[in-house]
Amino acid sequence: MYKTLVNYRKRRGTEEERRILTLLRDRGFAVIRSPASGSKRKDPVPDIVAMKDGVILLIEVKSRRNGKQVYVKRDQAEGILEFAHKSGGELFLAVKRPRELRFLKFSELRRTDGGNFVATEDAIRAGLDLDALVRYVESKFSKPLDSFL
Amino acid sequence: MYKTLVNYRKRRGTEEERRILTLLRDRGFAVIRSPASGSKRKDPVPDIVAMKDGVILLIEVKSRRNGKQVYVKRDQAEGILEFAHKSGGELFLAVKRPRELRFLKFSELRRTDGGNFVATEDAIRAGLDLDALVRYVESKFSKPLDSFL
Repeated sequence: MYKTLVNYRKRRGTEEERRILTLLRDRGFAVIRSPASGSKRKDPVPDIVAMKDGVILLIEVKSRRNGKQVYVKRDQAEGILEFAHKSGGELFLAVKRPRELRFLKFSELRRTDGGNFVATEDAIRAGLDLDALVRYVESKFSKPLDSFL
Repeated sequence: MYKTLVNYRKRRGTEEERRILTLLRDRGFAVIRSPASGSKRKDPVPDIVAMKDGVILLIEVKSRRNGKQVYVKRDQAEGILEFAHKSGGELFLAVKRPRELRFLKFSELRRTDGGNFVATEDAIRAGLDLDALVRYVESKFSKPLDSFL
């Protein structure tokens, strides 16, 4: 019974990841879904890598039917933060709830005393929608210095 | 019999991709293997995405036991070139032969009259080995202009 619920959630999570992948692709991103997505591995990788004109977004997706806060456990968070740091990209938490999709900068999430990361209801509401995310990425396009020399 | 051979080649190709993934990870890259790798899809994605400090490498892997030239078919090549273009990264062909691994800039491959891409024996020998690839990537690290302002 518990296992069935876990599998159901995993399948639904996968569907949401695919949907977000398609949304980003339609906005001109080169996108790739992690094969490790949804599974536990010693080498953690974010669910989605989305790239556009040299800007790298790493996106961890959390899909929720209800509930106000979204938690990312310490171990998982530290793994994907390390991945993001090596890549030189920026890590986002995508929160998918009914009729709502928000992208939150991971660096702005609150940490609990236990070291877990939490997106509060307020933080989720203040997150970027897809349009705002695209504008944010476009604002980061900047030519390297040597292209001016 | 033919199908067995195809499956054998695919499995060996997957092993080589994993090995290259590990080599790059050990050199400080954030790496991800395409889930589409080895399968035909309408939305082509290179086998490996490797990122380091904002530099994006897209890598298509061709593993060969023997044979001098390596071909990439026009349709596949155009798909992954488009992906690379959108991402702002640079596309490489990794040629794995016994006791040899070379990374070739896709932009320097020769095109046949039919539009396919070919890595000649000379081009493969002149390709970058892993150390040279890492040095090449490190030479591309450059701060965006606004970090100087």
